[in-house]
Amino acid sequence: MKIAIDSSQTSGSIAIHDGQRLVFSEYFDIRVTHSETLMPSLDKALKLCGFSPQDIDAVYVCSGPGSFTGLRIGIATAKGIAYALDIPVHTYNSLELNAMACTPYRGKILSIIDAKMQECYAALYDAKLNEIMAPAVLKPDDILSWPIEGSIVCGSAAQLVQPYATQKQLVMANPMHNIPKAEALFFLYQYSQAKIYEGKALAELEPFYLRDSTAQIKANQKQRDLAKKIDQ
Amino acid sequence: MKIAIDSSQTSGSIAIHDGQRLVFSEYFDIRVTHSETLMPSLDKALKLCGFSPQDIDAVYVCSGPGSFTGLRIGIATAKGIAYALDIPVHTYNSLELNAMACTPYRGKILSIIDAKMQECYAALYDAKLNEIMAPAVLKPDDILSWPIEGSIVCGSAAQLVQPYATQKQLVMANPMHNIPKAEALFFLYQYSQAKIYEGKALAELEPFYLRDSTAQIKANQKQRDLAKKIDQ
Repeated sequence: MKIAIDSSQTSGSIAIHDGQRLVFSEYFDIRVTHSETLMPSLDKALKLCGFSPQDIDAVYVCSGPGSFTGLRIGIATAKGIAYALDIPVHTYNSLELNAMACTPYRGKILSIIDAKMQECYAALYDAKLNEIMAPAVLKPDDILSWPIEGSIVCGSAAQLVQPYATQKQLVMANPMHNIPKAEALFFLYQYSQAKIYEGKALAELEPFYLRDSTAQIKANQKQRDLAKKIDQ
Repeated sequence: MKIAIDSSQTSGSIAIHDGQRLVFSEYFDIRVTHSETLMPSLDKALKLCGFSPQDIDAVYVCSGPGSFTGLRIGIATAKGIAYALDIPVHTYNSLELNAMACTPYRGKILSIIDAKMQECYAALYDAKLNEIMAPAVLKPDDILSWPIEGSIVCGSAAQLVQPYATQKQLVMANPMHNIPKAEALFFLYQYSQAKIYEGKALAELEPFYLRDSTAQIKANQKQRDLAKKIDQ
């Protein structure tokens, strides 16, 4: 039996796969509920399905990019469980997790997540989820220089490229397909290789940030401003 | 705020939409958990999201075809809540609910659900979910007479037409897209008109069965056998 966790964006989700099929999944918007619901939800879900934590063979977690605090919580939880049970953690990034909902589309998939501060995280995949453009943090306008013509657009910040939909022949995914779900982590192996961390290597599993945190960026700016003042 | 319920197949699922976005969803396989989890799950979900039952403006439910008992439970629950709060019930059928996961595909969608007794429920839609072939109960082989060339195939019984995939240029959906989710009921309005039942008309809301129950079919067969014996 394996579990999946995602708290990389403004939502949290968990899922349980018994080796044959998805047997449980739960999704909650953190703006409405709380990020602290991750562990209690997992505990209730295991009981509902008649499992104990010792039945877990592997933990799947989304590595980011996304919310700094959310990623810390999700990855810390996954590492804690894996460490205690001596089992592996499988990770995929949040842009391929998003793209999974659009794989019925037979063309390129542009996956976009809001990065705040007028930026976004984006990646471009072919129909088999091979990377055409690797995950990057950029201004929405910068995506126009990517070969996005004819792509389907999905993810929490899909609407950022909506103004270019006609010009670039983009297909906007239905809002239902913009909702990230931990269960996608169980099905991504058919397209992409998970990064697997186990035993001592667990220490190397860190959130995939792509950018300093907003707090870090502000601190750096302050330091530069101060250095400027001293120079003057 | 609106809620969605589906227990038409071998799984149960609930979802909550706050008018702006999906805020909660839960899915459980009834073979692993229990169908009795529907109401307690809904109650816990409302509390988690800070809602009370009185906040519900509308109930969405899947009308079938599918499991006889499952449909009875789901529809009775929806009618009960709607009657108590004097709010409408919106229904969609289970074949379009399934098809919703495959709308990123830009072609025909063949939706298939296991009907047991070597039969299946099936419907064929165009890319905008307009019916090309209306929901029917039939032998898997009979689907070959439908204009299914080039369709994507989804639903719990998708594998029944797998042997004809090459001959009919079918695209088999990823297993993740064969999992029916109540939340799809919130997003179907963009493609299809819900049947809405309210007030006195609630009494007219009945499961969409398409076929007698297995028990009914066996009883009819017994009666025919008995009549034959008497005739001889």
